[in-house]
Amino acid sequence: MSSGFALGTLKRTSGAARQISRGGILTSSCSTLPHVGWATVTAVPRHPCPLRSSHLAVRRLLSARELLQRTSSSHSSPRHTIPLTQSRHTSTARTMAVGTVLVTGGTGYIGSFTSLALLEHGYDVVIVDNLYNSSKVALDRIELICGRRPDFYELDISDEKALDEVFQKHPAIDSVIHFAALKAVGESGEIPLEYYKVNVGGSIALMRSMERNNVTNIVFSSSATVYGDATRFENMIPIPEHCPREATNTYGRTKVIIEDVITDQVKAQRNKLEKAGKSPEAWNGALLRYFNPCGAHPTGIMGEDPQGVPFNLLPLLGQVATGEREKLLVFGDDYDSRDGTAIRDYIHVVDLARGHLAALNYVREKKPGVKAWNLGSGRGSTVFEIINAFSKVVGRDLAYEVKPRRQGDVLNLTAHPSLANEELNWKTELTMEKACEDLWRWVNNNPQGYRQEPPPELLAAVKTPKA
Amino acid sequence: MSSGFALGTLKRTSGAARQISRGGILTSSCSTLPHVGWATVTAVPRHPCPLRSSHLAVRRLLSARELLQRTSSSHSSPRHTIPLTQSRHTSTARTMAVGTVLVTGGTGYIGSFTSLALLEHGYDVVIVDNLYNSSKVALDRIELICGRRPDFYELDISDEKALDEVFQKHPAIDSVIHFAALKAVGESGEIPLEYYKVNVGGSIALMRSMERNNVTNIVFSSSATVYGDATRFENMIPIPEHCPREATNTYGRTKVIIEDVITDQVKAQRNKLEKAGKSPEAWNGALLRYFNPCGAHPTGIMGEDPQGVPFNLLPLLGQVATGEREKLLVFGDDYDSRDGTAIRDYIHVVDLARGHLAALNYVREKKPGVKAWNLGSGRGSTVFEIINAFSKVVGRDLAYEVKPRRQGDVLNLTAHPSLANEELNWKTELTMEKACEDLWRWVNNNPQGYRQEPPPELLAAVKTPKA
Repeated sequence: MSSGFALGTLKRTSGAARQISRGGILTSSCSTLPHVGWATVTAVPRHPCPLRSSHLAVRRLLSARELLQRTSSSHSSPRHTIPLTQSRHTSTARTMAVGTVLVTGGTGYIGSFTSLALLEHGYDVVIVDNLYNSSKVALDRIELICGRRPDFYELDISDEKALDEVFQKHPAIDSVIHFAALKAVGESGEIPLEYYKVNVGGSIALMRSMERNNVTNIVFSSSATVYGDATRFENMIPIPEHCPREATNTYGRTKVIIEDVITDQVKAQRNKLEKAGKSPEAWNGALLRYFNPCGAHPTGIMGEDPQGVPFNLLPLLGQVATGEREKLLVFGDDYDSRDGTAIRDYIHVVDLARGHLAALNYVREKKPGVKAWNLGSGRGSTVFEIINAFSKVVGRDLAYEVKPRRQGDVLNLTAHPSLANEELNWKTELTMEKACEDLWRWVNNNPQGYRQEPPPELLAAVKTPKA
Repeated sequence: MSSGFALGTLKRTSGAARQISRGGILTSSCSTLPHVGWATVTAVPRHPCPLRSSHLAVRRLLSARELLQRTSSSHSSPRHTIPLTQSRHTSTARTMAVGTVLVTGGTGYIGSFTSLALLEHGYDVVIVDNLYNSSKVALDRIELICGRRPDFYELDISDEKALDEVFQKHPAIDSVIHFAALKAVGESGEIPLEYYKVNVGGSIALMRSMERNNVTNIVFSSSATVYGDATRFENMIPIPEHCPREATNTYGRTKVIIEDVITDQVKAQRNKLEKAGKSPEAWNGALLRYFNPCGAHPTGIMGEDPQGVPFNLLPLLGQVATGEREKLLVFGDDYDSRDGTAIRDYIHVVDLARGHLAALNYVREKKPGVKAWNLGSGRGSTVFEIINAFSKVVGRDLAYEVKPRRQGDVLNLTAHPSLANEELNWKTELTMEKACEDLWRWVNNNPQGYRQEPPPELLAAVKTPKA
């Protein structure tokens, strides 16, 4: 979501979105785990994650310290992709999984937290990601926290043949949670064809492969950006799902389009089944429109690790706090809000991940066709309120400078979350202040993100089962 | 445009849109011209086409009869693609062309008439087409009528490498008129992913190739379908260009998306040029939203040649007239119109082709950025009025049966054409009645479309210079 803040334009190391390249320094320090012998350690129940609502007997693979030692010792290994033919045996000899989910973009920020939530709740997870804006280290952190590791394939979702092979190798997959996309609003206006090709083209390829492989449920990572300026109507703040969609930027338009592709495909497949005298219920879709995701894992070892300049308020503030950035630019303090700055709805990434789980469960159980849900808190915070909250957890004032409003920014984008509250039985449980606290623990302890090891004391805390 | 008529669903001979396959009978009788020796005959001015507004010294290649003899003798030759490396020399030693245009889908119905209009007005034309729903015989008919032949490459626009090669082989191309697309409204709801992939994916590939090859003007074959049900607003009939777009079917949605892709790309490229201190005017786009194209060439040797069941009112009526179809189904006679049937705006394909020419000229001269224009007559005709007009030219009543309204059909889709009238200095000159007359001449004389030779007397008339 575009809001009343941000800094300049996003730097890119490569114009081609399919290339898996980051700055040389980043890549060379990226850790890669060896993929042998992982299934040989006996499974025991792990500590309950603070955010875990149910317990399952899961395979304990390696201790956090053992894992980190392996991670550390493999730093000089060349990066490699797991061959599609290599068996990992991660889902055998275990309590039957609730289900198996393909997560596209599963090593990214929201994708990794959702994969964690799925594993914690008994799903098997298969991640596909081209690592364009993410790191395989996220897989290690997921395993450190919950004791289970997703399967992983490095591939681009526009490669239908590679996708087909993954589906064929994992016939238990009946659902996809689809995150893989480019996501920088400003950049999307500069290289729109890249955004249409990667986001829209990638989604079409994914849906085609799903159809061929009879994978019939999709949960889509949409965005509140689809609504555009909801203040163009009366009584649409907080924003309900029936607010007409009219994105004001290319990124948002790709999300609108993909929502339509999914809707048309589910409808067509249901009609086709019905005409064939079969039950049409197999095909379902969830369109999750989230507001401003933020925060990090409370353990402090997992969070957002943007490549290049971040384009969201809290990561930018994090960089101001660590000294990586001089000050935050605030665009407009003359809005009609309580302090003059723009209002947004910030949602803790752990809550957001739970929302995906709730939507997936709903879709698999209720088989509703296609439904859209807002994932937001319903609470709006101004830019100044966020600066104050984050300054408070950091313990000092953070520098900012007020600039004129930016074109396209709007006063208020706050979710009306009642539909998700009622239908999905889901609501946010973590506050914006908690997100600030968790973000600071992550940023302060891991200024290099996934390109460093977390401090030993955080790892030790992860290892210690909690009351 | 969906209207109050049509018959069943469109039959397809292949689900894969990129495959170039039609029924065996059609393919085996499809004529293919040899591509040798075409540039050796001295050019002389040809007869003025009845619809030609200016004269140019053009190369006279072969007489109509010679051409047909060659066509006939090559019936048993296997179909082949012109190699990209083969020089055709069609644009040398001639009066300097007004410009060179790439026409995608240029062997299709509207594409072939537009290519003809471009050639008649001094443009060089390079056609690319995958022949999925068209025939290379259209190239022969274009040449028969105007004495000039477009260059032709059999390729799919999703093949960016092949497109790059065409642009590199024809560096004079500065503009594209983009028709290539799937176009059956009903089918689009049955195989939506195919429509998104071919129409949207193809357009993205085309625009990417244009950018790489510095081809910066695009005239896009959009549709009034983008408006959806314009009666949802007050005072939007006749429909002006500022009517909000809200397509009600997948086909229409692909047109809306491509309009957005073009708009975003032109804007991004202009911004990029401006930032580099250059003039941003190079990049331009025309979005042509046409209403109900119909009719054929007045010579009776060129017209629509749908593969499979046609899905437009007049071609269906043509089949009733030739006895190929028993009767027409009219969906709804209880609309609030003068006779109870739905109202549409029928535009003669020759007028429509001139509209593309006018838009191209405007874009190349005025460099307006992106603009949308309706191409319609502003005159609405009911289904019964069309049946009556066509029955009149056929000379007998044509059978029809009234059925209940179809879901999604609307009362009135008539264009407000004043913007194109004023800005493009273009308006329709041919009536719906003239379209019926020309269509009947085409259908009656060529019941097998391009899979037969036209009657000798029509060919002789084409050969005879008029007045």
